[in-house]
Amino acid sequence: MLKVLAVIKVPGCYHDRMPAARAEAVRQLVEVGRRFDARGWVLGTSGNFSVVSGRDPLRLTITASGLFKGQLTPDQFLEIDDGCAVVEGTSGKPSAEAQLHVEIVRLRPAGAVLHTHSIFSTLVSDIRGSDRGLHVTGYEMLKGLDGVTTHEHREFIPILENDQNMPRLAAKVREALTTHPQCHAFLLRRHGLYTWGRTLMDAVRHVEILEFLLEAVGRAGEVAIYRAASTPRLSALDAVDQAQEA
Amino acid sequence: MLKVLAVIKVPGCYHDRMPAARAEAVRQLVEVGRRFDARGWVLGTSGNFSVVSGRDPLRLTITASGLFKGQLTPDQFLEIDDGCAVVEGTSGKPSAEAQLHVEIVRLRPAGAVLHTHSIFSTLVSDIRGSDRGLHVTGYEMLKGLDGVTTHEHREFIPILENDQNMPRLAAKVREALTTHPQCHAFLLRRHGLYTWGRTLMDAVRHVEILEFLLEAVGRAGEVAIYRAASTPRLSALDAVDQAQEA
Amino acid sequence: MLKVLAVIKVPGCYHDRMPAARAEAVRQLVEVGRRFDARGWVLGTSGNFSVVSGRDPLRLTITASGLFKGQLTPDQFLEIDDGCAVVEGTSGKPSAEAQLHVEIVRLRPAGAVLHTHSIFSTLVSDIRGSDRGLHVTGYEMLKGLDGVTTHEHREFIPILENDQNMPRLAAKVREALTTHPQCHAFLLRRHGLYTWGRTLMDAVRHVEILEFLLEAVGRAGEVAIYRAASTPRLSALDAVDQAQEA
Amino acid sequence: MLKVLAVIKVPGCYHDRMPAARAEAVRQLVEVGRRFDARGWVLGTSGNFSVVSGRDPLRLTITASGLFKGQLTPDQFLEIDDGCAVVEGTSGKPSAEAQLHVEIVRLRPAGAVLHTHSIFSTLVSDIRGSDRGLHVTGYEMLKGLDGVTTHEHREFIPILENDQNMPRLAAKVREALTTHPQCHAFLLRRHGLYTWGRTLMDAVRHVEILEFLLEAVGRAGEVAIYRAASTPRLSALDAVDQAQEA
Repeated sequence: MLKVLAVIKVPGCYHDRMPAARAEAVRQLVEVGRRFDARGWVLGTSGNFSVVSGRDPLRLTITASGLFKGQLTPDQFLEIDDGCAVVEGTSGKPSAEAQLHVEIVRLRPAGAVLHTHSIFSTLVSDIRGSDRGLHVTGYEMLKGLDGVTTHEHREFIPILENDQNMPRLAAKVREALTTHPQCHAFLLRRHGLYTWGRTLMDAVRHVEILEFLLEAVGRAGEVAIYRAASTPRLSALDAVDQAQEA
Repeated sequence: MLKVLAVIKVPGCYHDRMPAARAEAVRQLVEVGRRFDARGWVLGTSGNFSVVSGRDPLRLTITASGLFKGQLTPDQFLEIDDGCAVVEGTSGKPSAEAQLHVEIVRLRPAGAVLHTHSIFSTLVSDIRGSDRGLHVTGYEMLKGLDGVTTHEHREFIPILENDQNMPRLAAKVREALTTHPQCHAFLLRRHGLYTWGRTLMDAVRHVEILEFLLEAVGRAGEVAIYRAASTPRLSALDAVDQAQEA
Repeated sequence: MLKVLAVIKVPGCYHDRMPAARAEAVRQLVEVGRRFDARGWVLGTSGNFSVVSGRDPLRLTITASGLFKGQLTPDQFLEIDDGCAVVEGTSGKPSAEAQLHVEIVRLRPAGAVLHTHSIFSTLVSDIRGSDRGLHVTGYEMLKGLDGVTTHEHREFIPILENDQNMPRLAAKVREALTTHPQCHAFLLRRHGLYTWGRTLMDAVRHVEILEFLLEAVGRAGEVAIYRAASTPRLSALDAVDQAQEA
Repeated sequence: MLKVLAVIKVPGCYHDRMPAARAEAVRQLVEVGRRFDARGWVLGTSGNFSVVSGRDPLRLTITASGLFKGQLTPDQFLEIDDGCAVVEGTSGKPSAEAQLHVEIVRLRPAGAVLHTHSIFSTLVSDIRGSDRGLHVTGYEMLKGLDGVTTHEHREFIPILENDQNMPRLAAKVREALTTHPQCHAFLLRRHGLYTWGRTLMDAVRHVEILEFLLEAVGRAGEVAIYRAASTPRLSALDAVDQAQEA
């Protein structure tokens, strides 16, 4: 099920004990970590990533807990089963949120799950949190979401209240994914973004598109204010006859 | 017609089957993709790039659809004719917006067309969209636009409503370029920036200048508000006699 | 006491005269400088870093004064005692704020102290300065602070008035750390952030988490304004029946 | 007069025909261009840099006009005399603003002059332009300016109206530097920042410090608004008894 990100190259981190397909997936996740770290989306040790490394029985290869995502090494990934028990790997324990990854891949045809933690996803999840979600529509960027063919698409992004009780939070995720079967992502309030994709490449694209949209929505108000505040000054400029342009 | 960006070096991506001039152009476009990706202007798989690789008959070398622009390889470019049919290359299909590139190079003496998709071009295209364009004037940065020699220049940037019907959108582009023969770029609403240049170097410079100007215009309102809100505090500072500076 | 950041690699800066453990710590600090410089947190020659290289007697290895933090070399570190006298190293004088580092490691079980100087820590330290501190709560990111296990934690970050009199400023630091024995950091007003950790890795994580939180708090008002200003427009979008999502 | 930035390394760009000291300065300017380009301070082909390569007679080594500053090569620098005539180098013509560089090094003990063109220097130069300058005070970062020893220093940054008539603009620069003999920089309105230093390292530090301060001043209003808008919400949080912290 996994496809490769075409040109990602991570030198010298091949892992002898892993099957080739999983080693390749891990190699790509290391590179994804560097990319998201450079964009400031996984500061501290925030964020976590997984790929489906088996479907029957279910196996997820997931980042261990408490690591800088810009400096991952192949031995910092663990393979877990659908109860989040470690079946392969010795590097600490799986991310506390592994249960959410399992929930997602059970309910969606996902080969990879990515969780990022940017400033704008945090802010928008907070300010729109009491609405339990937000609609995003009218942006061309929406077309990068799997199956979306027009900017007129209306994407609903559920926002769930954050919770340290993982079984309870997993149940909220299950409910949100069931209630909104078309959604491509959800936000945890003041916590960040979860998205997924059929392939890791699809999931990376979804992260970048959704982070873009959340930043656009978050900044839109600043520009709206600008319009109100600066209309007189700009109007003066625009009042010059446009005939000279024609 | 193409000139090279002086020091761009892309190691080891020479393409045997391409003529040398086109291979060089592709090599430069790969580097442009990395540069714009680092600036966050082509997130997801947004944006598309082309160079004119023939004029008689018209040939465009253009990015294939659905790719990360920071990781392009030479085999991910296609050569198309003026009807957007692929005449060279086997990597998927050309960008959905290839028709806009063709329209631009027909109406302008352009050797390259670049489309970026930044936060600020998206926001400004939206907030000023109902005006069908915006004037930008008074910025020194304007002098980087081809043929502009003073910051007093008034650049009109048309804004077109976004549309998934490409023939219809191409017709709008044709009309905008005809109505505004001096314009260096246009915006698609909530979609992004199109600009071009006689050489690829000129087009890259235009992207950077226009993205700067759109960010400046987009942020100007925040600063305007700041002036209103903080004048009392700053005035207190400024009230100190300036004589001590003299 | 020092642990290593797993995969940090600084080529060719081994220092013959240093004990291996201190050389390793210095090598990591060089890399930390590059990382923070890339994020814009140590512009100019701002910021300073130290690690505890001895406890009995107390020894700190600290950046010399007046250096670009993105380009540190191993010989630009000095070893000082608890009176800030240089006991090892010939590269200029220790940072003017070395006394604050000594104060911190005396009162906290810290193996490393890091001072950054970002835009948002500067702004928030100013605007909340008259309150002598700020509470941050409700953010998942708080869990990255040592000993914190829930986003419901309330972190108090003391803000101290800036002062060029170092003994006086050190006394204020002593008082703040004593009054707030649970705090993980403090701000100097219009100056920046001080934080620490049991290991250098912990201190780096604390910097990234606190800079994230201060940026989130600093930007929260912009989004709050956006909500007020744009509710009508967004409400119109949201008024569409959500049934189609279900 | 020139000192070197300690660890800057530009591989393989030694220039046979240049004296060693000038070749070294050029090598450093190439690296400065990459650094400022990465920060987004010299987009398009904006910005220009010079070092004093002779005092008697006056010689400046300066960037040629119309180049991307992130990709400079040693042959893209020209040596000019105090009348801006090229005395060495064959790469195009000197920057249009070379005359301002000459003016600065005549009136200041400067070994290097740097001009950047950031979003925030552009915005602040505009919004404060009608005041013909702004005072900046109270920021620790001010201590990075040559000769400044306390954050209580009040730095006056003159703002000059932009002008395409270079002799006239040079006269305004002369007047500003004479009227404000202590200033470390000036802004051209809607154009950008000029600063200088005894060494190139000093000038680079001044750019970074002043860009930081202008961004802080430019963003201060947003935070000020936030305080007004969000005080009720934050007050609720802060109302919780602080006793538990003590």
